[in-house]
Amino acid sequence: MAQQHTVEGILETRRQIVNEAISEDLPIAHPEQLYEASRYLLEAGGKRLRPTILLLAAEALADVEPGSHSYREFPAVDGQPIDVLSAAVSIEIIQSFTLIHDDIMDDDDMRRGVPAVHREYDLSTAILAGDTLYSKAFENMLDTGATSEQSVRALSELATTCTEICEGQSLDIEFESRPGITTAEYLEMVELKTAVLYAAAASIPAIILGYEDAFDPLHSYGLDIGRAFQIQDDLLDLTTPTEKLGKQRGSDLVENKQTLITVHAREQGVDVDSLVDTESVEAVTEAEIEEAVQILEDAGSIEFARKRAHELVNSGKRHLEVLPDNEAHRLLSEIAEYLIEREY
Amino acid sequence: MAQQHTVEGILETRRQIVNEAISEDLPIAHPEQLYEASRYLLEAGGKRLRPTILLLAAEALADVEPGSHSYREFPAVDGQPIDVLSAAVSIEIIQSFTLIHDDIMDDDDMRRGVPAVHREYDLSTAILAGDTLYSKAFENMLDTGATSEQSVRALSELATTCTEICEGQSLDIEFESRPGITTAEYLEMVELKTAVLYAAAASIPAIILGYEDAFDPLHSYGLDIGRAFQIQDDLLDLTTPTEKLGKQRGSDLVENKQTLITVHAREQGVDVDSLVDTESVEAVTEAEIEEAVQILEDAGSIEFARKRAHELVNSGKRHLEVLPDNEAHRLLSEIAEYLIEREY
Repeated sequence: MAQQHTVEGILETRRQIVNEAISEDLPIAHPEQLYEASRYLLEAGGKRLRPTILLLAAEALADVEPGSHSYREFPAVDGQPIDVLSAAVSIEIIQSFTLIHDDIMDDDDMRRGVPAVHREYDLSTAILAGDTLYSKAFENMLDTGATSEQSVRALSELATTCTEICEGQSLDIEFESRPGITTAEYLEMVELKTAVLYAAAASIPAIILGYEDAFDPLHSYGLDIGRAFQIQDDLLDLTTPTEKLGKQRGSDLVENKQTLITVHAREQGVDVDSLVDTESVEAVTEAEIEEAVQILEDAGSIEFARKRAHELVNSGKRHLEVLPDNEAHRLLSEIAEYLIEREY
Repeated sequence: MAQQHTVEGILETRRQIVNEAISEDLPIAHPEQLYEASRYLLEAGGKRLRPTILLLAAEALADVEPGSHSYREFPAVDGQPIDVLSAAVSIEIIQSFTLIHDDIMDDDDMRRGVPAVHREYDLSTAILAGDTLYSKAFENMLDTGATSEQSVRALSELATTCTEICEGQSLDIEFESRPGITTAEYLEMVELKTAVLYAAAASIPAIILGYEDAFDPLHSYGLDIGRAFQIQDDLLDLTTPTEKLGKQRGSDLVENKQTLITVHAREQGVDVDSLVDTESVEAVTEAEIEEAVQILEDAGSIEFARKRAHELVNSGKRHLEVLPDNEAHRLLSEIAEYLIEREY
């Protein structure tokens, strides 16, 4: 009988597998300080959601029981062994690179409960650590043992994804000072900044394992759940206590970051810019955040964002219908749910 | 009869071709500000040395007259048309990305006679412009029309090169505060930070045109002339007037940057740290720089660096001997000479 897994159990075991693979694929080489800084944020934690989605997508496509086959020698459609773990690490490395550079741009001090890389080290080291991870991710994606045709396709997908992430981050910064952003503009930004990496994670197994027909639906699944993830992140910034969040609750409001919630509230006539007067994350009080959240709640903006996230998760799950009906498929659906149910 | 070209003439015409290709391959897309910032430094000038070397290496390998074949449909060894210009632009884009990020790390205000990107725009835009160029370079290298096997090899070479550039930059920063650097350590840093991109430029045509045997010698040529180029850059910082240099003469001394000259001088007992007391590039006087240069001259350090650069150029030229005896080969030799004879 096929074993029933919980999402929490799957995430926990895959997290350990991915962590071990990161140590293997990104060894502390010379110069040591550069590689230590490059690994610092990766070692600080993280749920490894994207690599776990990649590994589950591989298992759903190959129609094998989760955990039954080595991820380093995973069977492609023609039986050839593929290192899907190397691809999974590549995606996590890209994620880490973007966080390191984003924290500089947003002037964020903390990440995952520890100082951001530019605080723990310095600005130069943080820029350089991100740049190093960037090329390491490409090296890792070249190391899967896929055919040259497939590797070229995977690399092309990865490069396009990185360009889009930069475009999304650029829009995010632009939106901080531009009034009158629409929800459509906001969701385009989220697609580029966040969702495309989920899409790459979900769809790259289709390339490197030779299931080309599944590429588009898995890509769409990733785009949908990636947008849902970001909306949930925006919600958590308002609703999760600071200790649990690993950074100041409500920091998006203090920093004037656009979220689906604030964009909606503005459309409802809420004076979002005046919600929090305090200019720094260090100086803001819980009471001030609490009051702001109440106003957003009253405007229906929090409910609006919750609903949109749910719709995206349902849409994402529908894209999975092309996959075989198996345990990994079921877990990919559950992860979609998990993304908007998680509390941090 | 084969036409005789001058290096200056070749550089001028190739510069125009590469500039046009940059406009084509890196169009101003949405979001405009990101792409404008990404192109800003590329448009500010530059001699396009690396792409020119790439184009000449292609012509030397194919044994065709420089300029006789379209760089967009250049004949591979099997006659297939290859877009070597796309590869050339990829290399120039990597160069531009590293300059943008290096200028942030070195806190340099000027580059190519215009404000550095983080000054013309801001820190976030400069980080992001560099990140965008990074993935665009990979996209461009995937666009040559080479076989998948060759593209994978070229991408792998590019990714390794980028990792090494980061390692070199990390060492460069580390050396600023570490006493007792040896000339061997300094030259290892230069190999990583600067020479590997010359090596990639010279050798990637061997991959994408199918002349695998020529890869190693062309790579070695690039490493040698790249190191010579950096040593000449170090010399020019001391010997070229500020107006011609596009930045303050002697700024390496002010910023305590290690160069082959200062590393040698320290070995000769010169108290290099006290050569220039002024702490900022803005405040230093020409007289102070002049005096420092005289001390380095007296220690034989400038002559030492000149000699080393010459040796590297001669070694680089010898690696070319595997190439057919043609005009492009001759020009690659002359460019090696040019790198250490140029005055800015």
